[in-house]
Amino acid sequence: MNIGLLVIGDEILNGKIKDLNAAWLTSYLAKTPFRLNKVSFVRDRENEMLKAIKDLEECSDIILTTGGIGPTKDDLTKEIMAKYHGKKLVECQKTIEIVKKHYERFGKEWDPMSNDYRLIPEDFISTENPNGIAPGLVYKKSENKVFMSAPGVPREFQEMFSKVFLPYLFTNMKVENSDFEIFNIRTFGIPEEKIFFELCPGLWEKLEAFGKLASLPQLMGVDLTIVLEKDEKTQQKKEEIKRIVENTPLKESIWQYGLLSLPELIVQKAKEKNLTISLAESCTGGLSASRLTDVAGSSSVFIGSVVAYANSVKTNILGVKEQTLMDFGAVSKQTALEMAIGAREVMKTDIAVSFTGIAGPGGGSDYKPVGTVAIGLSSKHGDTSEVLNFHGDRLKLKSRFSQAGLYRLLKLIENS
Amino acid sequence: MNIGLLVIGDEILNGKIKDLNAAWLTSYLAKTPFRLNKVSFVRDRENEMLKAIKDLEECSDIILTTGGIGPTKDDLTKEIMAKYHGKKLVECQKTIEIVKKHYERFGKEWDPMSNDYRLIPEDFISTENPNGIAPGLVYKKSENKVFMSAPGVPREFQEMFSKVFLPYLFTNMKVENSDFEIFNIRTFGIPEEKIFFELCPGLWEKLEAFGKLASLPQLMGVDLTIVLEKDEKTQQKKEEIKRIVENTPLKESIWQYGLLSLPELIVQKAKEKNLTISLAESCTGGLSASRLTDVAGSSSVFIGSVVAYANSVKTNILGVKEQTLMDFGAVSKQTALEMAIGAREVMKTDIAVSFTGIAGPGGGSDYKPVGTVAIGLSSKHGDTSEVLNFHGDRLKLKSRFSQAGLYRLLKLIENS
Repeated sequence: MNIGLLVIGDEILNGKIKDLNAAWLTSYLAKTPFRLNKVSFVRDRENEMLKAIKDLEECSDIILTTGGIGPTKDDLTKEIMAKYHGKKLVECQKTIEIVKKHYERFGKEWDPMSNDYRLIPEDFISTENPNGIAPGLVYKKSENKVFMSAPGVPREFQEMFSKVFLPYLFTNMKVENSDFEIFNIRTFGIPEEKIFFELCPGLWEKLEAFGKLASLPQLMGVDLTIVLEKDEKTQQKKEEIKRIVENTPLKESIWQYGLLSLPELIVQKAKEKNLTISLAESCTGGLSASRLTDVAGSSSVFIGSVVAYANSVKTNILGVKEQTLMDFGAVSKQTALEMAIGAREVMKTDIAVSFTGIAGPGGGSDYKPVGTVAIGLSSKHGDTSEVLNFHGDRLKLKSRFSQAGLYRLLKLIENS
Repeated sequence: MNIGLLVIGDEILNGKIKDLNAAWLTSYLAKTPFRLNKVSFVRDRENEMLKAIKDLEECSDIILTTGGIGPTKDDLTKEIMAKYHGKKLVECQKTIEIVKKHYERFGKEWDPMSNDYRLIPEDFISTENPNGIAPGLVYKKSENKVFMSAPGVPREFQEMFSKVFLPYLFTNMKVENSDFEIFNIRTFGIPEEKIFFELCPGLWEKLEAFGKLASLPQLMGVDLTIVLEKDEKTQQKKEEIKRIVENTPLKESIWQYGLLSLPELIVQKAKEKNLTISLAESCTGGLSASRLTDVAGSSSVFIGSVVAYANSVKTNILGVKEQTLMDFGAVSKQTALEMAIGAREVMKTDIAVSFTGIAGPGGGSDYKPVGTVAIGLSSKHGDTSEVLNFHGDRLKLKSRFSQAGLYRLLKLIENS
């Protein structure tokens, strides 16, 4: 069953705010039998909105709009939906009750005449908004054509879609379960081109025989994704795919068969092995800690991070020697090593990882250009550090530095 | 001049990867005379791609595609563009030279017969790819209709668009400068509905008189954006708008006229006042430090953060008393206060902010539900802390906790 998504708003297309709903919806739907088959972003212009709705109706079963259902005058969706379906706006008692209740939830009273919430297109129904005030709108045009309008604010959109619209779709449309399963191979550190044309010529053709194949570059690696038809041989096919890739030089670079993020897998493996983790972060500025703590349950393995942006924090809290900083500089194998050892000691963990580098745009030199990073590891197996080089702007370098360190952390946990 | 963007790829629509290019492009174009007027996401299906290109050609001057130009067999863009324009694929010497050079940059040799890079649609030109191997494609169909295809990988797309496509457009199309200017009012902590229907009835109409008005809810506040026509009175209009909003109760909640993010403004103001900042983060897990260090030049004011996820780090590094944790718990005004004082002392900064709370999904209780956060501030003016409550999932709560603390940090800097 296909969903066409229409994201409405000048502010999205002129770069004023970023749309978060399309990306959220694509991930969210992966676990449901519904699929996005088209997404369009349009401005708040009546003719452009009408054209885009028509276009989506032609190719999708469910036409979902986001944005423009608030109480202010730049909110046009209701009027446009009425116009598109040739309906007039009518006062709706149920809508009035919903809005009144929503206001009360925020401790406020509402006079139905103070704004136009009370009006909806004829034959439409209003729905709850678990996280806001403006009700959603649903119109079942036929057995296999439903129009739904939700707010644009991400927390309202996401709650309304998952708690209100999705149950509606399950109970009001004939839904079949997906016949496909995604098999995903996550690799690290080898560019797409090298995999297929140098390391493993012929691999593409071999994998393609199992189903639709895609090669998807990620932050610092490539995902190979195969869409398998679900049948009694699915498990057998997966084993065969594994055998094939593990017979190539790519084997060393495969870090996961699955869809977990690197922080998610680190937390899972550290839990299994009962290991605690601490970090010492200079150039990544807390990003690595934040990524680990994005994972629910990370507190059982992640103890803390010292974000030692200034050298004084490296010496005072982590115990890096002044002499080391003077002799080798803050971005050096030696400093990274002492940071990792210091973090492990002061936070009393099994493992510590350190990051010190130059994210730019300033601070680089010929000898240590922007993109240089030193990463240290400390565990009961010993202490090591190395210097690596990446390219990109400040935010990308922070991400790559973080990813490189966390990847080494994963390997250390797996070998512990 | 309008750009229609086509994002191509099953993997985007099935949630496998997130498209980052559309959001980047909308922000990036804001500083140029080009505007996105429509964005469509489509799957790797020939008929869907052809239909979407046609649709964009009807409404846009420039049709830009992202994705599907790599060397692997799921890369269809080149074939589709040839088909759409009724061109055949031909060998192109310039393309061969570009690809050869790109390979060499990565220290590799390339045999032109090893893949199909050498073929492009007739009458198209190949362009440099500053960050990768696959060349871009440009086809000038007429004086005011240009088709451009770039890779989907964000770092390749962004470099190609900004360094290759944009200069091409400036030199090959008649471009006028924008006649409009955005005036933006950033507020904190008051919901959209309350602003227009309770606090400031009539404000919408007054502001609308100056130009197209939009009200845009942000992470924890609302932006009021007015598009002003550029003329000799623009400056005067801005002063008048300021006078109007500052005569309403909204005045107290306005934290900026402009488009800087909260971390950017904090770094700017702290530099102006020559103040140094440190953090103590429990529930935000390094997110606040990471957001501050996203700002280039933050190292001149940001000293460090102790991410004290475990209580042992709160006591050992920040000097929080065991007794305080026992008497009041880790999420309490008292603990937040001692964390802020400890961070300021141990990192020797003018100001410190602390965060301790419950981001969920576990760890909540009736008395301290998920969403509870204590925020502490320490400076030479004194030490304070308070307990706040928010709602949302784990990632949203981390963001809201962080935003609430950073907002208080901004106010403290402004009053220092």
